Amino acid sequence: VNGRLSLNQWTTKSWSVPEAVDGCVRHGIEAIGLWREEVAEYGLAATAKRVAGAGLRVSSLCRGGFLTAGSWLDENRRAIDEAAELEAACLVLVVGGLPGVVPGQALRDGARRDGADHDSVSRDLPGARRQVADALDVLVPYAADQGVRLALEPLHPMYCADRAVLSTLKQALDLAAPYPSERVGVCVDTFHVWWDPEVFAEIARAGDRIASFQICDYLVPLPADVLLGRGMMGDGVIDFPPLYRAVADAGYAGDIEVEIFNADIWAADPDVVVSTMKERYAAIVAAG
Amino acid sequence: VNGRLSLNQWTTKSWSVPEAVDGCVRHGIEAIGLWREEVAEYGLAATAKRVAGAGLRVSSLCRGGFLTAGSWLDENRRAIDEAAELEAACLVLVVGGLPGVVPGQALRDGARRDGADHDSVSRDLPGARRQVADALDVLVPYAADQGVRLALEPLHPMYCADRAVLSTLKQALDLAAPYPSERVGVCVDTFHVWWDPEVFAEIARAGDRIASFQICDYLVPLPADVLLGRGMMGDGVIDFPPLYRAVADAGYAGDIEVEIFNADIWAADPDVVVSTMKERYAAIVAAG
Repeated sequence: VNGRLSLNQWTTKSWSVPEAVDGCVRHGIEAIGLWREEVAEYGLAATAKRVAGAGLRVSSLCRGGFLTAGSWLDENRRAIDEAAELEAACLVLVVGGLPGVVPGQALRDGARRDGADHDSVSRDLPGARRQVADALDVLVPYAADQGVRLALEPLHPMYCADRAVLSTLKQALDLAAPYPSERVGVCVDTFHVWWDPEVFAEIARAGDRIASFQICDYLVPLPADVLLGRGMMGDGVIDFPPLYRAVADAGYAGDIEVEIFNADIWAADPDVVVSTMKERYAAIVAAG
Repeated sequence: VNGRLSLNQWTTKSWSVPEAVDGCVRHGIEAIGLWREEVAEYGLAATAKRVAGAGLRVSSLCRGGFLTAGSWLDENRRAIDEAAELEAACLVLVVGGLPGVVPGQALRDGARRDGADHDSVSRDLPGARRQVADALDVLVPYAADQGVRLALEPLHPMYCADRAVLSTLKQALDLAAPYPSERVGVCVDTFHVWWDPEVFAEIARAGDRIASFQICDYLVPLPADVLLGRGMMGDGVIDFPPLYRAVADAGYAGDIEVEIFNADIWAADPDVVVSTMKERYAAIVAAG
């Protein structure tokens, strides 16, 4: 049952790349989702070698994107190069929020509408969304040359201002539509899409656009830092089997990556976390 | 410019009903949005008399709903009776979350999927949405008999689990569609809908279904209690003029109610809050 299960390395955040690779091998996990920061720390070539040596698939590289920030082009070219070298199934793109809004930080007083320099933050959401579409048009050919598939990830609407103006699967599929599906796909993450009244229709529509399937639960109440509201499957409110079946019915047969940002889980013994993840996946997600 | 501006009484939460009524009169505000809890404290008949005596319109009564909870029928009949007596323009319905999920409270350990009594919380989101539709079918004739218009309020998707399985304006309009628009309308609240890629299309579609227009800003980052992430217009990331114009273009000419849940604002002098609200409304919202 665990053949398609992938460990996103931020689920075991205290583990370095070699520790996470060894952990996967030890627990019979056949795929891993990597993060650029951790890969850089261990070294890109060293990571590629270590992962290949262990016989693991790289289910995704997290992440490119933030296409509304000034440095987006260079940064995303580097991310694409890295995804190519790691032979990642896709590069996940978190597209970025409103220009000038910094994730996790308050608006500077001057950025308030009644302040002097209110232009330092843009409130033009449709404009930001067009900016993302324009940036994608530049990135797709570069990624295609490197043989890298981009995966557009809609984020929960609570992150619209500071992380991703891409808020629904429908919007992601519309954004991907001009490009071949083997070049631009979408990342379906249960945490981000579970609430959407159109999620089943849009998963069916996605078909071979599904480049990544990430799972974790949605906790209630959300913690003080809403970024850490992701929980182990079964600890929150998401009904996994219908989403699992919908993604399978749409034709996705790739890896299923568990990606949890959660202070308690990060503080726990990573080996226990991986064991729990395997049990919960078998009992709750794939049991339907 | 302030003729359509309405004070939702929770914006000045420390004020009792008579204090809020007097505050409106003092500041030249012609309409008020009332809350059932505060009305009950001052007395229903006394409130109706006080508001009418001051010549104020009641732009809305907050709130009915929680249609997925056991006691929904009696509770909502009472709310409808109160809205009738107060001659409120509408009764706002916050439809409720997943059965068994209590707003602001963690799931009991036993409600986790790996626990013994996992049936105490339902994770059947489509089922909860059907429950809301079924309840509405019972409530609408009762409200019609009392001459009360119901206003379905889609809440931001971050409240889907614990407060409202109604998450988008599109979904609200679909839910309202079987009923005459003078019986069942929708409440457009900028905080809840600003992120929606389809918000302008759905506001246009709403037309005379718009029963209430509530405004406040969306703060970044959200505070520890996400319910209190509502800010004074200009302090967050919402671009108000396009939404203001869209609602006007759809034909809505009713009151525009400022509803802010915010610890700092609740701690401030209510007279200063109302003054700021008037200034910001004129400078930011209705200036477009």
